[in-house]
Amino acid sequence: MNFKSLINKPVLILDKKKCITNIEKMIDRAKRLNIRLRPHFKTHQSFEIGRWFRERGISGITVSSLEMAHQFSKDNWNDILVAFPVNLREIKLINYLAERIDLKLTAESINSINKLGNSLRFPVSLMVKIDCGYHRTGISADDREYLEKIVEEIGNYDKLKLNGFLTHAGHSYKAAGPDEIIKIHKESKEIFLKAVNSFKKDNPGLLLSYGDTPTSVLADNFKGLDEIRPGNFVFFDLKQWSMGVCAIDEISVILAAPVAAKNLKRREVVIYGGAVHLSKDSIIGKNGKKIFGIPVLINNSGWEIADKDSFVSSLSQEHGIVKCSQGLFSKIEVGDIIGILPVHSCLTANMFHSYMRASGEKISRIEDLY
Amino acid sequence: MNFKSLINKPVLILDKKKCITNIEKMIDRAKRLNIRLRPHFKTHQSFEIGRWFRERGISGITVSSLEMAHQFSKDNWNDILVAFPVNLREIKLINYLAERIDLKLTAESINSINKLGNSLRFPVSLMVKIDCGYHRTGISADDREYLEKIVEEIGNYDKLKLNGFLTHAGHSYKAAGPDEIIKIHKESKEIFLKAVNSFKKDNPGLLLSYGDTPTSVLADNFKGLDEIRPGNFVFFDLKQWSMGVCAIDEISVILAAPVAAKNLKRREVVIYGGAVHLSKDSIIGKNGKKIFGIPVLINNSGWEIADKDSFVSSLSQEHGIVKCSQGLFSKIEVGDIIGILPVHSCLTANMFHSYMRASGEKISRIEDLY
Repeated sequence: MNFKSLINKPVLILDKKKCITNIEKMIDRAKRLNIRLRPHFKTHQSFEIGRWFRERGISGITVSSLEMAHQFSKDNWNDILVAFPVNLREIKLINYLAERIDLKLTAESINSINKLGNSLRFPVSLMVKIDCGYHRTGISADDREYLEKIVEEIGNYDKLKLNGFLTHAGHSYKAAGPDEIIKIHKESKEIFLKAVNSFKKDNPGLLLSYGDTPTSVLADNFKGLDEIRPGNFVFFDLKQWSMGVCAIDEISVILAAPVAAKNLKRREVVIYGGAVHLSKDSIIGKNGKKIFGIPVLINNSGWEIADKDSFVSSLSQEHGIVKCSQGLFSKIEVGDIIGILPVHSCLTANMFHSYMRASGEKISRIEDLY
Repeated sequence: MNFKSLINKPVLILDKKKCITNIEKMIDRAKRLNIRLRPHFKTHQSFEIGRWFRERGISGITVSSLEMAHQFSKDNWNDILVAFPVNLREIKLINYLAERIDLKLTAESINSINKLGNSLRFPVSLMVKIDCGYHRTGISADDREYLEKIVEEIGNYDKLKLNGFLTHAGHSYKAAGPDEIIKIHKESKEIFLKAVNSFKKDNPGLLLSYGDTPTSVLADNFKGLDEIRPGNFVFFDLKQWSMGVCAIDEISVILAAPVAAKNLKRREVVIYGGAVHLSKDSIIGKNGKKIFGIPVLINNSGWEIADKDSFVSSLSQEHGIVKCSQGLFSKIEVGDIIGILPVHSCLTANMFHSYMRASGEKISRIEDLY
């Protein structure tokens, strides 16, 4: 079967073999480093891909919204951590889930804990968020007073149980390369452990939860921590590649896009594939220019890199412009399909309802949330 | 009724009154300037909003994909221009639509015209795309030879009819302000008319189609052109506002987002509202920093601007960080709902299945395409 003949419009293609390899490598890594893996499912948002983890022994997962927790609970996930400050307005859904699964919520303010504690009808485990340097959310690691207060406050509600502490070294995404990622990892881990170690000493059952894809892939020392929560590694993307976190061949998703036009003078190919398909994150190329994707040639079993000089130079709503090398330009005709490696696979995958495999098989994402 | 009590998660809010005013102003403007309005429906993608145009006399529309044309044909739109280089891989859908409606396609290469001409079973009107300076797609306006060839080629197929010429001065979006937009308009219009006037002279029935929101709102001279195709004006957004195309009060959509956390030290509010809700376009603020949205206070009939100093400073997948003025920070509690004016309303609206009015009424978007 000619795989490309199945594609008439922008489609998200998943290479299952690469994806499974990424999953297995991370599972092996966690085993070897003696740390539990609680993968973040916000990247793939698919029952089927989730099952690839379950079949390999994963039992606890991370999600980024209560609705995502709700969806995955329907596929029999029972230990779900919502790694996002609890949305108090969804208290109905919280109670619904708390009655059915081991629901772990994230909190970082006494105000939230009061409101939550007063509205819960079923027990919930709480992870207290610590800011280890990313400065997005979390209690400042050096604010000992507030941290003690919040732990005390949790004890005042019979439906709330302090389950542990959580942090996210998201500033690792700003690193230039592996060395800097390792440096950020060391600092973040130290800041986190320093902030929470005394609680852990008094109560060894407390869970210390950490991790993002860059540090989970590259760091070797997780001593003192209990679990990591990487998500993006399931697909990887050009952002991870640009930071030295993955090889370009490990990226397991591409956008397949019809070629709409060619311009010989500018050596550009216009694809039917824009911001509504790829999303709009970019990386900076060696030439100093923004790169919104890198073209690949689709074959019957997957894809191969076209060359090192071609890239997606801009995106509008449905259009993408591919600046082509001479070689690539001469290979592409209007009406062809080309592949695009995405810059940020989480956001690209979020634009689609399903993935397509080279076999033509469709892999659904969970029901759209908005 | 307390409008905010209806909102528990990120929701797209539409102010129908502002939206209708935007529509009526553009219709009046086109009448006054004696140019036909063929609004671009890619921005709203809603049957109901489309009907607000129809009720006011609009009969021809623009869309950016064949699937969008298909959807709107179901709501009895009969004159639909797909302003995107024809996707030859969707020939089945092209024939389906060509049998049922007055389908206008866009072409810019002889290759496309050959393939299309050989596969059509029903007549289609063709608009030939001219590049008037944006350099995204279209035949270079000074490539007289190719333009003549393409017109000749169209004549070789009995199912193809040359309907006219089309251009898009999309570089108006790079303008710093109104004066530059007017300058771009004058140049683009002149380039376009120079390229196509001789064809129009020989065949006065040919349609000259032009226009984007910035030039359609600000320019007064469309002499020689037959129609304009603005789309964004139905909602406007911070991008248009930053260029001086609209007032901030004319923006008719906001994201309503629950407040997830507050950080006193950084005077930041974290909202449950990120790149998967707002999309990731940004504008540059007066302070030189990227702005991903501006917060507004939601009231029972709509919203009001909070102040001039607060802005969304960053977005990750589900998180948004709002840098707050002292005044705004003190007004917001965790669990509240705040509104965010979007930077690019087309992309933000694309993230949702529906709009919500302050009355609670839901306005659907067309079926999701991917």
